[in-house]
Amino acid sequence: MRVNAYAAPDAGQPLAPMVIERRDVGPNDVLIEIRYAGICHSDIHTVNGDWGPQPFPVVPGHEIVGIVTEVGSEVTRHRVGDRVGVGCMVNSCGECTNCRNGDEQYCLNGSVPTYAGTDRDGTTTQGGYSTHVVVDADFVLSVPESLDLAAAAPLLCAGITTYSPLRRWGAGPGRKVAIVGLGGLGHMGVKIAHALGAEVTVLSQSLKKQEDGLRLGADHYYATSDPSTFEQLAGQFDLIVNTVSAPIDVDAYLSLLAVDGALVNVGAPPEPLSLDVFSLIGGRRSFAGSQIGGIALTQEMLDFCAEHHIASDIELISADQVNTAYERVLASDVRYRFVIDTATLT
Amino acid sequence: MRVNAYAAPDAGQPLAPMVIERRDVGPNDVLIEIRYAGICHSDIHTVNGDWGPQPFPVVPGHEIVGIVTEVGSEVTRHRVGDRVGVGCMVNSCGECTNCRNGDEQYCLNGSVPTYAGTDRDGTTTQGGYSTHVVVDADFVLSVPESLDLAAAAPLLCAGITTYSPLRRWGAGPGRKVAIVGLGGLGHMGVKIAHALGAEVTVLSQSLKKQEDGLRLGADHYYATSDPSTFEQLAGQFDLIVNTVSAPIDVDAYLSLLAVDGALVNVGAPPEPLSLDVFSLIGGRRSFAGSQIGGIALTQEMLDFCAEHHIASDIELISADQVNTAYERVLASDVRYRFVIDTATLT
Repeated sequence: MRVNAYAAPDAGQPLAPMVIERRDVGPNDVLIEIRYAGICHSDIHTVNGDWGPQPFPVVPGHEIVGIVTEVGSEVTRHRVGDRVGVGCMVNSCGECTNCRNGDEQYCLNGSVPTYAGTDRDGTTTQGGYSTHVVVDADFVLSVPESLDLAAAAPLLCAGITTYSPLRRWGAGPGRKVAIVGLGGLGHMGVKIAHALGAEVTVLSQSLKKQEDGLRLGADHYYATSDPSTFEQLAGQFDLIVNTVSAPIDVDAYLSLLAVDGALVNVGAPPEPLSLDVFSLIGGRRSFAGSQIGGIALTQEMLDFCAEHHIASDIELISADQVNTAYERVLASDVRYRFVIDTATLT
Repeated sequence: MRVNAYAAPDAGQPLAPMVIERRDVGPNDVLIEIRYAGICHSDIHTVNGDWGPQPFPVVPGHEIVGIVTEVGSEVTRHRVGDRVGVGCMVNSCGECTNCRNGDEQYCLNGSVPTYAGTDRDGTTTQGGYSTHVVVDADFVLSVPESLDLAAAAPLLCAGITTYSPLRRWGAGPGRKVAIVGLGGLGHMGVKIAHALGAEVTVLSQSLKKQEDGLRLGADHYYATSDPSTFEQLAGQFDLIVNTVSAPIDVDAYLSLLAVDGALVNVGAPPEPLSLDVFSLIGGRRSFAGSQIGGIALTQEMLDFCAEHHIASDIELISADQVNTAYERVLASDVRYRFVIDTATLT
């Protein structure tokens, strides 16, 4: 099956229309007519070559929503006409400890990324900036009816990436949670933490987006460029989710944690970070990291978001605006996620 | 009350006999006739001035066991003749969140260290290398009858320091726990983790103490100087308790953790440590720290050790052997804790 897509022909080159091949629908596969695809900062890192050599041409996109148009003979979870989503991975071994525990993203044999990865049949995966995709049914999520389809797309990466640490580290009533950075991930973190019942503080470089932050569900908003913020908030938080990939002063953020508090990075700065072990010992604190979430948890997140009427704040664009959108993402000029209307690809 | 003690007259000088003053027994105080005092590496750091200026002369010792010889009018928890212990702290505010949560070691107004600290009445605290000590009853632990008194002394620091993270991070049946370093802390970590039902691995510089490690309760023993150890054990552990204060390659140890695993430092190297955040994100791992434990948990630890017939492996010395013992501790030449027989001070 040959389908329209938007692809990066090589590292650092602008994306352009391209026709790609999708595999035949196998017994456990689902064919999805893609309706919307979110633009994640990872897409830009990948096609820029920031994360090493890639199997170009690369069709990015791992925030995919659409409608099922065909299912394989053995598929029972999804039916033609279903609203579905696909996130950052499309396969895993299914047999290792981590897969059996529902942590397919940590598959010991390597989970398969939605694009620029090698699928278990040896083919290179291509992502969601495209009209159709064929995905193993076990990696296809159900998107509840009450969610707006376009606004739901970013939940598949930005949503689960923040939901997972918030759930694991117990964000909820009586807990003070800080979200560092109010971008694509951060704005979902605020909405979800608030819906979970936590008291939410945004820690942002400046107060530029304060009004937005409070509207999204934050109870407090502080500028990290103001040194008094760190004095004022010392020892306050049970959990800090850091959505910023740039290096941070780890000790400064750890000092904001109460006893047993955790600072959880969901972005990985390229350089190693340094910390004073006493920052941890002095409050039984943890510095942790988290990467997306397993399939079952992703479904739980989608159902939670539907129940709490949460989705992403998006700016809908046509495919030919992708390169401009990339520039604006790099300039932090988006509130809060670009989503491609894939109808513009046909 | 004037009592015999062994004190460091100044930074880096050998300890020598000295007579010190103990306060009168207040309404909530307990007077303890000290029988044994363990030697902790912290004692040496403090009197050497490694941790900054100290209020010399300093009487070290925060692994204290003895017999109650007098109680204040309001004391109900302890009676004359009771076997009791005192650990690393002798007071705290009792009113802050952390104190109310039983984490007196993290008192927001500052817990009072057993020696070289300033007590709430403004006096300088002096530790256990002494014949008697007066301590607030709330900071006096009961030492169960079945524990050998001398071997129980190190439980008050080495015991609780390892018990606390093992309990908090869920060491128990079905969990794989590694203890880094087989010294005073490490040997207690092995005994306690084993008694908690965990599968215990010692990670030591060399295999020199392997026989000891297995006798103490370890199931496995590996040399960290052998690079194949890190390949062989990749992704194995649920919990690693690092008892070594020297800097470690954090990323290498994090790579030994399974998904959701934690590396917990109980020693604080003086230099900052560096780590690659991907070591955390790539397995939802944590790098954490822990410092002794609260009073209630310390009592729980003593009762647990009594129930499981665990105490420290000690070498009993007289007070005049303290300086030699310090040299041997620095040379890692002790299996596994020196304990001073304070009868030699009278």
